Amino acid sequence: MNGKTSTVGYVESLHAKAIDLSRLSVEMTAAADSGHPTSASSLAHIVAALMYGHMRYDPSDPASPTADRLVLSEGHACPIVYAAGSELGLAVGRSSESRRAMTIEDAMRLRDIGSEIDGHPNPAEGFPFFPAATGSLGQGLSIATGLAAAARLDCSDKRVFCIIGDGESREGQVWEAVDFIVDYGLNSVCPIFNCNGFGQSDPVSSQQSPEVIAAKLRGGGFDVAVIDGHDPVAVRDALLEHVRHAEDADARPFAIVAETVKGWGFVKTAGKGLHGKPLTGDDEAAALKELEETAASLGASGVNGDLKVGPTPAMASPSAGCDSPPGFVEAMNTYGQSGALSDGKFAPRKGYGIALRALGHTNPDIVALDGDVKNSTFAEYFSQDPDLAHRFFECRIAEQHLISCAAGLASGGKIPFASSFGKFVARGYDQFEMGFISRLNIKVVGSHVGVNIAADGPSQMALSDVAFFRSMAKVHADEGGPGLYILNPSDAVSAYALTVQMAEHKGACYLRAARPDTPFLYDLDADFTLGGHGVLAEGSDVLIAASGYAVHETLKAIAALSDEGIEAGLIDLYSLPFDSEAIAHAAQASGGKVVTVEDNYGAGFGSEVAESLLEHGGNFKINQMYVKRIPKSGRSADDLMNYVGLSADHIIATVRGLVG
Amino acid sequence: MNGKTSTVGYVESLHAKAIDLSRLSVEMTAAADSGHPTSASSLAHIVAALMYGHMRYDPSDPASPTADRLVLSEGHACPIVYAAGSELGLAVGRSSESRRAMTIEDAMRLRDIGSEIDGHPNPAEGFPFFPAATGSLGQGLSIATGLAAAARLDCSDKRVFCIIGDGESREGQVWEAVDFIVDYGLNSVCPIFNCNGFGQSDPVSSQQSPEVIAAKLRGGGFDVAVIDGHDPVAVRDALLEHVRHAEDADARPFAIVAETVKGWGFVKTAGKGLHGKPLTGDDEAAALKELEETAASLGASGVNGDLKVGPTPAMASPSAGCDSPPGFVEAMNTYGQSGALSDGKFAPRKGYGIALRALGHTNPDIVALDGDVKNSTFAEYFSQDPDLAHRFFECRIAEQHLISCAAGLASGGKIPFASSFGKFVARGYDQFEMGFISRLNIKVVGSHVGVNIAADGPSQMALSDVAFFRSMAKVHADEGGPGLYILNPSDAVSAYALTVQMAEHKGACYLRAARPDTPFLYDLDADFTLGGHGVLAEGSDVLIAASGYAVHETLKAIAALSDEGIEAGLIDLYSLPFDSEAIAHAAQASGGKVVTVEDNYGAGFGSEVAESLLEHGGNFKINQMYVKRIPKSGRSADDLMNYVGLSADHIIATVRGLVG
Repeated sequence: MNGKTSTVGYVESLHAKAIDLSRLSVEMTAAADSGHPTSASSLAHIVAALMYGHMRYDPSDPASPTADRLVLSEGHACPIVYAAGSELGLAVGRSSESRRAMTIEDAMRLRDIGSEIDGHPNPAEGFPFFPAATGSLGQGLSIATGLAAAARLDCSDKRVFCIIGDGESREGQVWEAVDFIVDYGLNSVCPIFNCNGFGQSDPVSSQQSPEVIAAKLRGGGFDVAVIDGHDPVAVRDALLEHVRHAEDADARPFAIVAETVKGWGFVKTAGKGLHGKPLTGDDEAAALKELEETAASLGASGVNGDLKVGPTPAMASPSAGCDSPPGFVEAMNTYGQSGALSDGKFAPRKGYGIALRALGHTNPDIVALDGDVKNSTFAEYFSQDPDLAHRFFECRIAEQHLISCAAGLASGGKIPFASSFGKFVARGYDQFEMGFISRLNIKVVGSHVGVNIAADGPSQMALSDVAFFRSMAKVHADEGGPGLYILNPSDAVSAYALTVQMAEHKGACYLRAARPDTPFLYDLDADFTLGGHGVLAEGSDVLIAASGYAVHETLKAIAALSDEGIEAGLIDLYSLPFDSEAIAHAAQASGGKVVTVEDNYGAGFGSEVAESLLEHGGNFKINQMYVKRIPKSGRSADDLMNYVGLSADHIIATVRGLVG
Repeated sequence: MNGKTSTVGYVESLHAKAIDLSRLSVEMTAAADSGHPTSASSLAHIVAALMYGHMRYDPSDPASPTADRLVLSEGHACPIVYAAGSELGLAVGRSSESRRAMTIEDAMRLRDIGSEIDGHPNPAEGFPFFPAATGSLGQGLSIATGLAAAARLDCSDKRVFCIIGDGESREGQVWEAVDFIVDYGLNSVCPIFNCNGFGQSDPVSSQQSPEVIAAKLRGGGFDVAVIDGHDPVAVRDALLEHVRHAEDADARPFAIVAETVKGWGFVKTAGKGLHGKPLTGDDEAAALKELEETAASLGASGVNGDLKVGPTPAMASPSAGCDSPPGFVEAMNTYGQSGALSDGKFAPRKGYGIALRALGHTNPDIVALDGDVKNSTFAEYFSQDPDLAHRFFECRIAEQHLISCAAGLASGGKIPFASSFGKFVARGYDQFEMGFISRLNIKVVGSHVGVNIAADGPSQMALSDVAFFRSMAKVHADEGGPGLYILNPSDAVSAYALTVQMAEHKGACYLRAARPDTPFLYDLDADFTLGGHGVLAEGSDVLIAASGYAVHETLKAIAALSDEGIEAGLIDLYSLPFDSEAIAHAAQASGGKVVTVEDNYGAGFGSEVAESLLEHGGNFKINQMYVKRIPKSGRSADDLMNYVGLSADHIIATVRGLVG
């Protein structure tokens, strides 16, 4: 109800609605026999004000590109939103065909295995009002910034609200997002801190008191309103103050710090600080009775005033259509890299950067993000292109925010490529997994993978990344196929092509973009596919399946082995999953003898090959080569490959041992 | 030089030392042909003031329990510390036998494969002045808090300095650590923000300006001095101001925000904002010449004043000796859980909590940390014991800080057990890996692992954890054996015993402590070993290797299969790595037919079994059962195990398919 100024009926109406939603929250968590009714009711007025009056959206299409959005960062409070949803008839249903208006009966199926409303928000289960899965705390404000950034690119005046718990605000990521909002002037984001004073196990620290949260926000450049979160006028005035900030390009960003009561309306029954426990049986009856008494004392019984949903704003212009991106050679020539074509070498990370830039020109939905290392990941090929710079987001040294902001951009309809050193991507693993749970279309790129970076040492080397992402690559996507692809190109030709493929694939991907300038191993117009592999040498004595930078060391070994009469085949595992049948057949054709080589810790490519062979059946011998000791600094890649036992000489010795 | 007030000679001497160290930094990075000389020189005065005058330590034993410590959070600036080390003859050497005084020649071997001084700090490579590996940014202040907390427990007045880059301070974890310092009044920690104005790819955001960093610190409850980091008197006065705060129990914590120059002393040569590039050849010569000119202009040439290292404080009393912890039954009876003994069931997470408490009473070095879920992880059995409460650290909802603080405590000689939901432990994976690189003795415990937690949904379920930690379990420790152990107990008896084993093992461990109250599967005095496994059923038709909660579902399946005449063996994989030979032999004894069952995503236990079988050779058939779809909420563990295909019925069907 942007612009509404009268208070006649508003106070009683909002109280009445807060009572309704609190009652439903108590009832649905009782029905589920689990959940967080007290966290829910602490948000009763704020959520009611947002969902019934202030937010501009159509309940039947709450994820419309132009709708205002609410990110419930403290996801466990979701019953209060489900309560409103069941009254407002919000759309529920996993697919557009099965979508229908939510009912009270739906609310009472909270947390059921067949229900669309999960214990924590997840739009992928069929509740599209939520933009992304939340519940792992501290991530929502970053997601909100991604949504707001996407809206700005679409010329939409969408507002994005984000509710953050006081205890949750201890998560440093919240303050990374605060900085990002100031950097980009994303005043359309409205952070609302819900200060009910209690975490799960204790009252919150005094560092998370309303006063200190407000002081931190002010120190960080925000204007702040500290309000009573159960005072209807204060809630409405603060939301209207946010509108003024959102519409004023010169204003500072604005946040609301709301003092609230955990278990509002039934706190005598619940007791102070109850967390994550439903009230059932007699306790439920007592809570409902206390809510009635609260309503009466507020003069809110039976009131049904003017809080209804406002109009949806005009649709922003849709994105222009996509063209096909150019091939590798054309892109290299267009973007000033003809020299590398003649040299015949170029780093995979640079191949990624060129592809990103080419994609930027052919697909208006492509956006890029980086964390102060764009001159290392070569995301700068994109950011420095004047036509693309506005679609680049510098997240600074804040990788948790980087990944969640990418998730928000994906939720807002963009195709985000988020890059950093692979080692630092680990800072956002949980954030990535939340995006994975949300089934978001995010692309994460890790450069500086493996020991080959040498001199900077292990604090900068991604070594566990293949194992981590592989766990999700082994999950089946809803529509079939793998849950995600790991791409580990060995040269710039494949890095370019696989980046293009990633952009076309709808789903999560992780690309390892190695640092060294390495020779091209493929024809410059070769085809690559997610799930595919390359055949770089034929040989019947042994099959070597290598991946990424290790392919180059393997090629040296194969040349030397050939000189001594051992003919090795070489498969380039540039993707995981890969075609395991094809690998097993190739292994059989090499007498069942297989060596795998990869520049990372174990549980990665070699492990997947071993599983494939065993599944295929037959008699195989495999020797997995991977990084088996903690690396250190060395002055050259060769020093390091030797130190960890992955040099050409080590490969030769391993093959001899297996074949001889 | 605590207490020193005269400035006679100090200014010129500190300038001279800053010149010396900057020159060496330029020279050693030139020799290495990589590194960060400009970041180094921005710290020239601060590091010189700390290492030559202010810190109380013995260069031949800089890691002494009573020595003041310096955590270089912006690890890439390490050449400045190495420079000082080479002049001061700081101890270097990987082992105590090989330890010797560092020389200039050592400094010139920076980043060499045989050198003790890595490209980023790592004490494990032989430079014990640094308390822990750093270089993945934003973690150092948390580590410093752990060191300070350990010192407080040891009744030491140790001071812990932590240097943080301005760009680095964008990492939210820094602000998690700031809150922790205030919560615990750890005024002995002195955060020093090095504001040289430049990140890697750009000038820092205005959100990381000295003014805004200071405003944020003040908002968070700190006193702050904003100083010129190249003004000797300002540097010294600020350090002395920290001493006053450290010694005053009523004072607020104190931080220094230092405005500095990246490339101080040779900025005309380097240019503004040069990052991560050595100056070689003519550039090196020009930089050295400019440094001489800088020295002359400061009147600092040839000065060698009174900056020498102060005395080491008296040794704190060493920890008392350890007793043997009681057995499971005695501990359960002692700590009020006799009822569970009669019931015959107890959750693994509670078994962990009881063991933690028992260990607390028998080993004074055991400390515990948690992130606002101690009533879920049952770390509260420890925190609520009046004799142990002072050794418990509530890190609140800030898991990055949780893990790094544990690393600091380990570096300070304690045996930290850090617990949270397994899902949220992922927030600290990179921090864990840094501790792993440091070879620290940290124990991480994740509760709420797997889909069996049901109602709360996937945002609370640890599913990728086994794959991630497995990558490090496959690394060899320096002294042999696995780099870490994953423990996944199926019942409280094994959870108790494995927690005791973890405490006794020197090295990193990850324990999965499942949520449900499950029946005891072992004799209450059974033995368990890291690397071991349990045999819970014998049967020659098929071998089922299950882990964690999945063992219970498997037992149901085995009973039903027995009724239809299929005799299945059951191995409980409570550890990874495990005895792969023994598993392979058991598989052979079951006709080579193997089913693995685990309540997590793939690339975990089943993958390790597959690798073991293939390595062993022979003809095996394996069917891996794990979580192959993204889970959702459900009202019971059975609902979820059924949803993801891990119910007893699914196991029965899989076995039938393999055997029949």
